[in-house]
Amino acid sequence: MSNNKPHIPKGTRDFTPAEMVKRNHIFNTIREVFSRYGYQPLETPAMENLDTLLGKYGEEGDKLLFKILNSGDFIHGIRKDDIHSQNTNALSLKLCEKGLRYDLTVPFARYVVMHKHELVFPFKRYQIQPVWRADRPQKGRYREFYQCDADVVGSDSLLNEVELIQIMDEVFSNLSIRVKLKLNNRKILAGIAEYIGVPERITDLTVALDKLEKSGTEKVYAELREKGIGDSSIERILHFLKISGDASEKCEALMDLLECSDTGLKGIDEIGKIFQYLENINLKNPVEFDISLARGLNYYTGTIFEVMAIDVAIGSICGGGRYDDLTGIFGLPGTSGVGISFGADRIYDVMNQLDLFPAETTTASMILLANFGEKESVYCLSLLAKLRAAGYRSELYPDPVKLGKQISYANSRNIPFVALVGENEMKEETITLKKLSTGEQHSFTIEELFKYLEQISQSNSL
Amino acid sequence: MSNNKPHIPKGTRDFTPAEMVKRNHIFNTIREVFSRYGYQPLETPAMENLDTLLGKYGEEGDKLLFKILNSGDFIHGIRKDDIHSQNTNALSLKLCEKGLRYDLTVPFARYVVMHKHELVFPFKRYQIQPVWRADRPQKGRYREFYQCDADVVGSDSLLNEVELIQIMDEVFSNLSIRVKLKLNNRKILAGIAEYIGVPERITDLTVALDKLEKSGTEKVYAELREKGIGDSSIERILHFLKISGDASEKCEALMDLLECSDTGLKGIDEIGKIFQYLENINLKNPVEFDISLARGLNYYTGTIFEVMAIDVAIGSICGGGRYDDLTGIFGLPGTSGVGISFGADRIYDVMNQLDLFPAETTTASMILLANFGEKESVYCLSLLAKLRAAGYRSELYPDPVKLGKQISYANSRNIPFVALVGENEMKEETITLKKLSTGEQHSFTIEELFKYLEQISQSNSL
Repeated sequence: MSNNKPHIPKGTRDFTPAEMVKRNHIFNTIREVFSRYGYQPLETPAMENLDTLLGKYGEEGDKLLFKILNSGDFIHGIRKDDIHSQNTNALSLKLCEKGLRYDLTVPFARYVVMHKHELVFPFKRYQIQPVWRADRPQKGRYREFYQCDADVVGSDSLLNEVELIQIMDEVFSNLSIRVKLKLNNRKILAGIAEYIGVPERITDLTVALDKLEKSGTEKVYAELREKGIGDSSIERILHFLKISGDASEKCEALMDLLECSDTGLKGIDEIGKIFQYLENINLKNPVEFDISLARGLNYYTGTIFEVMAIDVAIGSICGGGRYDDLTGIFGLPGTSGVGISFGADRIYDVMNQLDLFPAETTTASMILLANFGEKESVYCLSLLAKLRAAGYRSELYPDPVKLGKQISYANSRNIPFVALVGENEMKEETITLKKLSTGEQHSFTIEELFKYLEQISQSNSL
Repeated sequence: MSNNKPHIPKGTRDFTPAEMVKRNHIFNTIREVFSRYGYQPLETPAMENLDTLLGKYGEEGDKLLFKILNSGDFIHGIRKDDIHSQNTNALSLKLCEKGLRYDLTVPFARYVVMHKHELVFPFKRYQIQPVWRADRPQKGRYREFYQCDADVVGSDSLLNEVELIQIMDEVFSNLSIRVKLKLNNRKILAGIAEYIGVPERITDLTVALDKLEKSGTEKVYAELREKGIGDSSIERILHFLKISGDASEKCEALMDLLECSDTGLKGIDEIGKIFQYLENINLKNPVEFDISLARGLNYYTGTIFEVMAIDVAIGSICGGGRYDDLTGIFGLPGTSGVGISFGADRIYDVMNQLDLFPAETTTASMILLANFGEKESVYCLSLLAKLRAAGYRSELYPDPVKLGKQISYANSRNIPFVALVGENEMKEETITLKKLSTGEQHSFTIEELFKYLEQISQSNSL
């Protein structure tokens, strides 16, 4: 038992009541839109078996998994030689069978495969839960953070992409965040890899392109060179970076360049169709076809999405894409899916910076009943019960301390009213209500008090 | 990468959409009551440093902590001799610095101590989050489960106890679960330990008494004997088990027996006052003073609570108590607190068994627009946008498959209506609406459709 000041693990956070209220505003907004579009809630456990998680996020991702020490006699089966071996990874797998989930997509794929016989496809689910990554903590990057995902599996239709675009558009519009939605297609990137003569290097190409906006052309070229991609190939990339215009102009230019790549042409056809659908929908935010958009995760095979906030430079605040074979790694090939993921933490930061949280997001009590002693408290209990029965958040200060202390408690909690019920009020069956913002006091009968509170709630004029 | 059928760690669960909707009904009910009583939301990270968790739940609890393998070079500092040592516990502490939280109370105490200078006391918080225990999984016992806690720290007032009793009463009444609330006081148990001549054995006594209801008197006596408590002491326990009557009669009988124990008398005084307060409140469920109620956790020092469902034998579905020194173990002595914890899983089981979930708890879409092909889909997109803008959960089937398959999709999702918009309907600007429960079809203009949907929503006659 330690007597030291306790700490919290680095990269993790406590969420205070004030922060919780704001975070819930984001989660509730997202949840409401997901639900209105026919997505159903799902939750999976924090722990997954390591063989579910390993190999799904690349080598780097495997290293970032939090592993859970086996319970009981975890040493059983470990030989002394396993210690000091170079391969800490192999040893960790002997010590640990389980890990904390790294994202919500792989657990979802695992769920779909486990329940493939009961599920009716297309299966549309949303999931809002924390994920854990043993990343080096830094500003805006945490070891525990929430993801808000919507995915639909079991349908190839591009209407799913259109629907997800509408969802992203609506969520950010409801949160009052101005955004730009970016679209691309992995098949086009594959076509480009073919065109520049390195078809097998699509991953290197996409990883490099993914950094284009952040690092600039020169750095991206240097990285490609480092990865052994020749100058002639790199030069051919220029043809693509020069392409401009609206979506249909870009499609046309691409069709010329990629005419020899079936995959590339298929990608162009897909993105073209999506933009045609979008013409029939009034979106509130601009959608752009961005040929350089790549997104790191290598399970994407078709459309990829990314959302950037216009008024804050913070990177992507939402993204996703289509994956044709995510469940294939669990033995269920041919189930195509497409999904998006909202980054709650960055959205929170954007809204805080731009002061976009609505003022009325509070869960504070409306009234604090002051405590003047034993007799008065007993009397107040029934008043309190009436207030709560009417739906007013209210509380009785538990100790009969000085009124000043009770009022400063109310102030610190953003409670707007303090009700004073002392000996006089008890005799006259009245309540003295003090409005803390102005200091005004009024005497009410119980009926008058409820009328007054109703008025205030309706006009929301706290 | 494994091709085996994936599994889920034992003792953990996925929650399907249908289960999620029911669980959220429970969480929302609890959250709403907490909030109406002035409690504020708080969340803490899943991972805590092990020195925060260890030593807080007894030896048994320490063993049930899930520990997280240190990231990176976790072998550093481990000697070969540490392997095969008898003390796996010491080795685990070299391999792991963090663990998953075991309950919500200790993280809350840690939070209060870390933020003692910013917090205004009394601090009332609620917290609804999962906890993890490496328990042997069995029916109704999971390795990951949710707790719903409300605690207030920084006030000795018994009004806090009264308020928590009201909260328990109201939550179960709102969930339509008939319950019996049981109250006792640890100081009375300490008094009994003094009276029977084993004051230092209060923990053994409470652990044994805790099993009284489940195991019967004989087994409890046997356990006490095993622990070295003499027959004369055990005989004196009989004086207490004979006590009957209402709360004030029990208090009087106890006062006679415990007149020499200051601690015992203080406990009787506390419980007596609580029952006096309760006389002024209309509770919907009975409250009973149960001298044999002990509750295992040894950080309780005053009032203890327990709630039993009347119509299902499932053990306690809510419980809690007052702890005078929980923050003391983190270097902040003298901060008294009292709290309760709802067991969401058992509440879920009770409600399922008694069929208490309201029928309308569904998040299914209200309308599925059938997909008759490309042209029709494009036409439907704008109808869909109107439906969603009006708040109706609705979706377009993404693929132009056979109508029968689309209708069976709607049936499996509990979607009550399918809208048919084919070539004719497009020409005539109508919608054919099929009610799946009866098979009836009606043709509507858009205006008529919205009027019809509004009527249905208001009368809730799906």
